[in-house]
Amino acid sequence: MKLELISIGSELLTGKTVNTNASWIGNTLLANGYKLSYVQTIVDNEQDIKAALELACNRADFVITTGGLGPTGDDITKACVAAHFGKTMQYHADIEQELDKRFPGIPGHDNQATYPEGAILLKNPSGTALGFVVENKVVCLPGVPSQMKAIFEIGVLPYLKKQFPPEYVARSVFIAGKIENDVDPTLRELEEKFADIELGICPSWGILSVYCVGKNTTHVDAAIMEIEKKFHDVIFSTESSDISLAVHLLLQKKKCTLAFAESCTGGYISSQITQHSGASDYFLGSVITYSNEAKEKLVNVAPKTLQEHGAVSEETAKEMASGAKKALGSDCAVGITGVAGPLGGTDEKPVGTVWIALVNKENKYTTFRCTRGGDRKKIIEYAANTALHMIWRECR
Amino acid sequence: MKLELISIGSELLTGKTVNTNASWIGNTLLANGYKLSYVQTIVDNEQDIKAALELACNRADFVITTGGLGPTGDDITKACVAAHFGKTMQYHADIEQELDKRFPGIPGHDNQATYPEGAILLKNPSGTALGFVVENKVVCLPGVPSQMKAIFEIGVLPYLKKQFPPEYVARSVFIAGKIENDVDPTLRELEEKFADIELGICPSWGILSVYCVGKNTTHVDAAIMEIEKKFHDVIFSTESSDISLAVHLLLQKKKCTLAFAESCTGGYISSQITQHSGASDYFLGSVITYSNEAKEKLVNVAPKTLQEHGAVSEETAKEMASGAKKALGSDCAVGITGVAGPLGGTDEKPVGTVWIALVNKENKYTTFRCTRGGDRKKIIEYAANTALHMIWRECR
Repeated sequence: MKLELISIGSELLTGKTVNTNASWIGNTLLANGYKLSYVQTIVDNEQDIKAALELACNRADFVITTGGLGPTGDDITKACVAAHFGKTMQYHADIEQELDKRFPGIPGHDNQATYPEGAILLKNPSGTALGFVVENKVVCLPGVPSQMKAIFEIGVLPYLKKQFPPEYVARSVFIAGKIENDVDPTLRELEEKFADIELGICPSWGILSVYCVGKNTTHVDAAIMEIEKKFHDVIFSTESSDISLAVHLLLQKKKCTLAFAESCTGGYISSQITQHSGASDYFLGSVITYSNEAKEKLVNVAPKTLQEHGAVSEETAKEMASGAKKALGSDCAVGITGVAGPLGGTDEKPVGTVWIALVNKENKYTTFRCTRGGDRKKIIEYAANTALHMIWRECR
Repeated sequence: MKLELISIGSELLTGKTVNTNASWIGNTLLANGYKLSYVQTIVDNEQDIKAALELACNRADFVITTGGLGPTGDDITKACVAAHFGKTMQYHADIEQELDKRFPGIPGHDNQATYPEGAILLKNPSGTALGFVVENKVVCLPGVPSQMKAIFEIGVLPYLKKQFPPEYVARSVFIAGKIENDVDPTLRELEEKFADIELGICPSWGILSVYCVGKNTTHVDAAIMEIEKKFHDVIFSTESSDISLAVHLLLQKKKCTLAFAESCTGGYISSQITQHSGASDYFLGSVITYSNEAKEKLVNVAPKTLQEHGAVSEETAKEMASGAKKALGSDCAVGITGVAGPLGGTDEKPVGTVWIALVNKENKYTTFRCTRGGDRKKIIEYAANTALHMIWRECR
């Protein structure tokens, strides 16, 4: 079975908007047993939309479109789909009444209550554009991500599952603290053992997303079980590659309070933790000590330590961690100091050198030195993922 | 002139990777006078690549491909493009020698030194896959974003400009502290005045990206000049929508030091500032005071203030700002405290209520209360952009 997505909107082609809808739909389809085969991204222009529909309806079994369902003149997806199938438009008085009630004072509800004749309408819990399925072949969704996702989950997925039995089973595990070469041989062995499954790794700065896809549930599950057995001590999730989420769930459960002293990561690790609702259950706060003075004043790093070992050193990271623990009164604390670059590297401490120290409840330290290069953003992300992995290992 | 992008890679269709290459290419083309008309995203499968090339070469004047140029068996873009044009492959001994020297110990350099016969080769400053142009019609680039971007800038753009004169002029201005309705009437007036230009707004949580595109440079420049005149006090950049970059460049120039006391933003604003190399010139550090205790202990918020006004209040934000200024010894400081949700809102202080206080060199305060709703991530982003805009206005 082939599925195709047509992403409609000139903002996607001028780069003003990144097409996150496409990756979300691809990922959600796979998690539900379907594979997306093609994406076409086009401007909202009648000729292009019609050509894209023609191509997609010929080669795919089912087509999803996003965008162009607003009430203004630019929004022509609905008319193009109706024309493609030779349908007239049908006005639904009950829908206009409901929209008037839910979104009073907003114009265009007559338009938003008009759909191709005979279309199956899919509820939009937060906007005026309904999703709709025409001829069991094309489903049209609005481009606003939150509305698209809601309709997809409550409308499109149940519809798809009824019409087309899922073909694939997809499972993932997420690993920290290993490189691709540590895991790849195991995957190759499993692919020999189970010829009908596909295994792969997506590395992202210290995190490996390992996925297994196949049509035979027993084989997919057996392969994932072997991977889980072999890498049980480094698999932090089977749901999400976001290690900050794994730490968040763990510390909420363990009731272990946390604080950071961040230097080169400049607040990034704290912001990763605090993106999760409920972080205040265990996260007490941080100090961002970007200058040596701040390291001395806020987390009590000894001037002698800075002089003798430098700001980027195991000793400074340890004193930062213990200083943060004391200043915030937390169970655990982590200190991070390094050279994020692109300037400031030396032969001894090149760009990418980051020292991380964790101090636990019993005042025992674990330290780690990162040495991965790359640009500033990547060095910061790698250091953050490494620090979060150290917390996960300590507290689980 | 029509330009088409073919993004090749199954990771783009399973959603493991977001297609940021497509938005970067669209944006970069527009800034250089070209519009991208189509994007096709496909898996690395011979039949699909050939069909995509066929379609693109028929309808577009020039085609860009990304992905599938690695040395392994999965990487078949090169062979498919050669086949499309009926070309044999040509091995370049000098390229293999150079790759051996630059990337010793990595296998596959013979493959990476082989390209369709007669192709124009484009240097890759950081990887083994060269870009190449075939028959003045198709340019192939690797999928790794940093390598793709480097080849695009040093190879593809100069090539395009020589072969196809740019057709468009695109200018932008970036505005903070206004909503779409404040700016839209001016744009509609300008579109009436200059019938051959296109004006638009992309809003993103407190930031408006206003763009103007047209074929007539005089009209585009005149329109932008009128916008600049009308909104001169809120336009923070004509280059980038990233207001943290505008603040970064401003504070480097003004030599004005900065510190934050962040509560609901949890380190996000500090991390926005410290993503820029050289932030240590003016950024001294921050305290993230997620608990009331931390607010009292680290930035000296009076227990009485917290009791009488609550943690989310103008008074607490002001005391946080002055506490951060004192603790870090900065010229300016900003305190931020709010309800990022989804829990914790009340009738008086609903989710999305954020108080921001800025204290300047002369110990004068500016405060602002955000009341935009949305999900947690968006509330944090809006608060961060608002705080950065307050700093920009204060220091420019």
